Amino acid sequence: MSADGKVADYIPELSLMSAELFSLSCQGIDSPLIETGDSGQFFTMQSISKILALSFAIENFGRDNVFRHVGMEASADSFNSLMRIEMTSSKPSNPFMNAGAIAVCSLIYKAYKDGSACRLIAFMKSITGRENGFDERVFASEKRSADRNRALAFFMKSMGLLHGNVEAILDLYFTLCSLRCTSGDLAKIGAMIASGGISIHSGEKILTKETVFTVLGLMSACGLYNESGEFAVRVGLPGKSGVSGGILVSVPGRMGIGVFSPALNAKGNSVAGIKALELLSEKLNLRGLGE
Amino acid sequence: MSADGKVADYIPELSLMSAELFSLSCQGIDSPLIETGDSGQFFTMQSISKILALSFAIENFGRDNVFRHVGMEASADSFNSLMRIEMTSSKPSNPFMNAGAIAVCSLIYKAYKDGSACRLIAFMKSITGRENGFDERVFASEKRSADRNRALAFFMKSMGLLHGNVEAILDLYFTLCSLRCTSGDLAKIGAMIASGGISIHSGEKILTKETVFTVLGLMSACGLYNESGEFAVRVGLPGKSGVSGGILVSVPGRMGIGVFSPALNAKGNSVAGIKALELLSEKLNLRGLGE
Amino acid sequence: MSADGKVADYIPELSLMSAELFSLSCQGIDSPLIETGDSGQFFTMQSISKILALSFAIENFGRDNVFRHVGMEASADSFNSLMRIEMTSSKPSNPFMNAGAIAVCSLIYKAYKDGSACRLIAFMKSITGRENGFDERVFASEKRSADRNRALAFFMKSMGLLHGNVEAILDLYFTLCSLRCTSGDLAKIGAMIASGGISIHSGEKILTKETVFTVLGLMSACGLYNESGEFAVRVGLPGKSGVSGGILVSVPGRMGIGVFSPALNAKGNSVAGIKALELLSEKLNLRGLGE
Amino acid sequence: MSADGKVADYIPELSLMSAELFSLSCQGIDSPLIETGDSGQFFTMQSISKILALSFAIENFGRDNVFRHVGMEASADSFNSLMRIEMTSSKPSNPFMNAGAIAVCSLIYKAYKDGSACRLIAFMKSITGRENGFDERVFASEKRSADRNRALAFFMKSMGLLHGNVEAILDLYFTLCSLRCTSGDLAKIGAMIASGGISIHSGEKILTKETVFTVLGLMSACGLYNESGEFAVRVGLPGKSGVSGGILVSVPGRMGIGVFSPALNAKGNSVAGIKALELLSEKLNLRGLGE
Repeated sequence: MSADGKVADYIPELSLMSAELFSLSCQGIDSPLIETGDSGQFFTMQSISKILALSFAIENFGRDNVFRHVGMEASADSFNSLMRIEMTSSKPSNPFMNAGAIAVCSLIYKAYKDGSACRLIAFMKSITGRENGFDERVFASEKRSADRNRALAFFMKSMGLLHGNVEAILDLYFTLCSLRCTSGDLAKIGAMIASGGISIHSGEKILTKETVFTVLGLMSACGLYNESGEFAVRVGLPGKSGVSGGILVSVPGRMGIGVFSPALNAKGNSVAGIKALELLSEKLNLRGLGE
Repeated sequence: MSADGKVADYIPELSLMSAELFSLSCQGIDSPLIETGDSGQFFTMQSISKILALSFAIENFGRDNVFRHVGMEASADSFNSLMRIEMTSSKPSNPFMNAGAIAVCSLIYKAYKDGSACRLIAFMKSITGRENGFDERVFASEKRSADRNRALAFFMKSMGLLHGNVEAILDLYFTLCSLRCTSGDLAKIGAMIASGGISIHSGEKILTKETVFTVLGLMSACGLYNESGEFAVRVGLPGKSGVSGGILVSVPGRMGIGVFSPALNAKGNSVAGIKALELLSEKLNLRGLGE
Repeated sequence: MSADGKVADYIPELSLMSAELFSLSCQGIDSPLIETGDSGQFFTMQSISKILALSFAIENFGRDNVFRHVGMEASADSFNSLMRIEMTSSKPSNPFMNAGAIAVCSLIYKAYKDGSACRLIAFMKSITGRENGFDERVFASEKRSADRNRALAFFMKSMGLLHGNVEAILDLYFTLCSLRCTSGDLAKIGAMIASGGISIHSGEKILTKETVFTVLGLMSACGLYNESGEFAVRVGLPGKSGVSGGILVSVPGRMGIGVFSPALNAKGNSVAGIKALELLSEKLNLRGLGE
Repeated sequence: MSADGKVADYIPELSLMSAELFSLSCQGIDSPLIETGDSGQFFTMQSISKILALSFAIENFGRDNVFRHVGMEASADSFNSLMRIEMTSSKPSNPFMNAGAIAVCSLIYKAYKDGSACRLIAFMKSITGRENGFDERVFASEKRSADRNRALAFFMKSMGLLHGNVEAILDLYFTLCSLRCTSGDLAKIGAMIASGGISIHSGEKILTKETVFTVLGLMSACGLYNESGEFAVRVGLPGKSGVSGGILVSVPGRMGIGVFSPALNAKGNSVAGIKALELLSEKLNLRGLGE
């Protein structure tokens, strides 16, 4: 599948991916995984991992505690903006913007220190049934290109909105961004959410209903940065994208979908990924409209 | 049902409503209207009418034409903000903020001039099967309290983002805000959208699939002003609120819901309305999650 | 004198001026008026009249009363911005931005109603010794092109920052903008301020010391819109510019200078006017630095 | 002299100063230093050192080179704001805001690396004739409390507006902030500027006319953070303040003034310092107005 976008290059290591790659995976709640395209291709989760961090934090620290440090609203600002934090002198708009996710990571790091990354990797394994590790070169590349995220963290810290060792918190954040996955892994995570929190792989209850509601709601409201509204119009499903070109979608009660294609549009979302989801959503009436 | 909020008073006429009023109506796609509470009580649609204006405009002028004048993204700004328009020198963020809705009204007024209001009233009648007119005292009160909306319109006009006679466009906008309805009317509009665009009352095809996708998507992304994210978390359904205390919800493939209770929270949404929808959504598993 | 800028055209009537015009007038405190170039050419005061409105308002209503409605600080925003008013929910930054000047006009209009313009024309005559009236075609053109100023006024009114009839207040504002003058008139006003408030023409005490301090201070801080800092660096004297191409400068204890040349730079200030003032300031050591 | 303000405490070490301290020093161009109050008291220069950094940078790298990295305009934002940098994607508004001064330090550090601080200390000695060193405890305290400045630096770096090692650049910045001085030293620096760039102490030409014009202009436009306009109204002289409670003023052609009193108003400027300057300016007609 061709694509008009451009592979992310602000993190040098990401730019090595071929723009031609494409894979699509669907994991039904009660049916086997179906995949097409380059479904064996690993890529890094990037912002999609913000779902894992958020879910993990709510499960471990409680929803109210988490949202004392981050808001629930979409913002028209770009993913790495901090203007609104200065303007309102208050917590980041939502946990899917960089500033918000860094705040979530600070909570995790505060509780589990250097054990944080291992726990999140184990958390992901409990959902997908396997462990892919993280990409050390991408991690190193992120860390070297991290001035904006460093600015976000120090800015929040200076306003009392974030506590702890900035570099350690950012290391956790970059580790999450660098987690390896395939579109199949994304589909399994999406299916777990779609099923109300139960791992398709093990049948284990992973998330409480409250966490599922929260994650799904935020995916609807702000899962695709400042393209979330247009995604809601074109695809009409809760999703979460990453600059590696992946998009995770959860169709409540039906399935999880993972799609991957590295060429991005100007807002940092996969061009072919969105197109594929749009076609799929309409073809399978995934919005569930009456006919 | 008691409520902790406060009846809107920035438009004097709205403040006359009793905070104790409450009604809830559900219109299934294939089942009769069920209602409870003060379901005979009329109130004005206020911002809920922005759904009508948007749907009407897309049907008559085409989606691309409409969104040349207004965006599709939620903004963390308040409903009557214009900061972002100045900051970006570009069209209003979405058609559910005042500025965006005024832009939509300008398109309608340009096409139908003084016949615009009649056409919109007829459009609503084609959905609900009845005509309730508009509240002239609320209309007059809105017009007298309209300095902020006037500022929005003149601001957009000065930037070439809006054309035509500002007072005439605002008159159309206030007429829409002043349309009378019951929670049952809202439920019928919600059901029409839920069914994919077919009037429950007449079986007539009112909206194309494209319009339905667009309206549903924007309800999900920005239907409750800068409380849309929290609504997505707590209720998890596409909705649209108004400062009169009404909320319209559409459950794709299942039903439309109208709820009404005039006491509002700080973000301008009905306190009891949101609570009732939250309970209903969970009780009836309206998110459609697997169990 | 040639100029690289562009004659203002956002008010159509202004665009009729020839870009080639240039005049320079110096009025010493104790010496006669010296003029060069097209010194007989009339032009409209535009924003330079904001000095008159501010001085008149302080003299008649007291400094504290005036600055209850407008601030004293420069802003990096453009002259017709309202972003900061929304962001801070407070009065306009200073009386030389459009919003601030409209607020000052509202105070004058409140006190003198339809007699306001006459009083201001008489006020100017008391300084310059003559009456040039106002340009009715420019006035009409301003009024027709006034959507941005209308937006500013309605916006402030909606926030309780301005009271009274918006159109009447704007009429006063446009009348001031349309006042006719020559560079010699500007020099006389500048000299009156430079002398500590005494009309060169009549010896009459026009302004108290407090008013002089205030006007001079604000000319230093924000007399040339968001080019005030650069003007302070290049020219180093208190000044006030207008989009007609005039600049008024006051050299405390020494003289007033008026310069006129209609071609403007991107920030709305006269290109040749600033250049001439820069040369003059250095040649005559108008900053008064030790040698 | 009593004061209503509050001694700065955001840098812990600064809060140790007594609010009761006050000193005032005047250095005429052709007359001896006159001092009153606690004129032997040392304090740290804080933001007043931004004048040294700017002067040094212009002299060594040329005005155009310096202002390629920083603007010349006042901003209504607070001294440590970065909102406008994000909003406009461009260089800091002026060299007296923290972001702008850090940008200036980056130029100096790039040229002189670890020799930068020594050169600036020598530069100051060439003006005042003595060397007071810097306060190591204040330096250490600043460095520990530096998250906001760190955020500013990383933010600019991420936008390509600043280059080099952030911590080293900040060390230079904090060293400058920590330079020790008395009000007499400030008066001597002010007199050097007032004389057109000649050291009162040695008769040596320190600054070119161009640098003097630039520094004086920026002191007029934005020397007292977002209180610069009010200072221009009340005092009417080019000044530069610091959060230690010092203010440096330069009266062109006449004298330099240094004033010190640690209790600050809400905008971070010395309450008693401004009051003293206001009285002095009026008493001695330092604005130079005709009488």
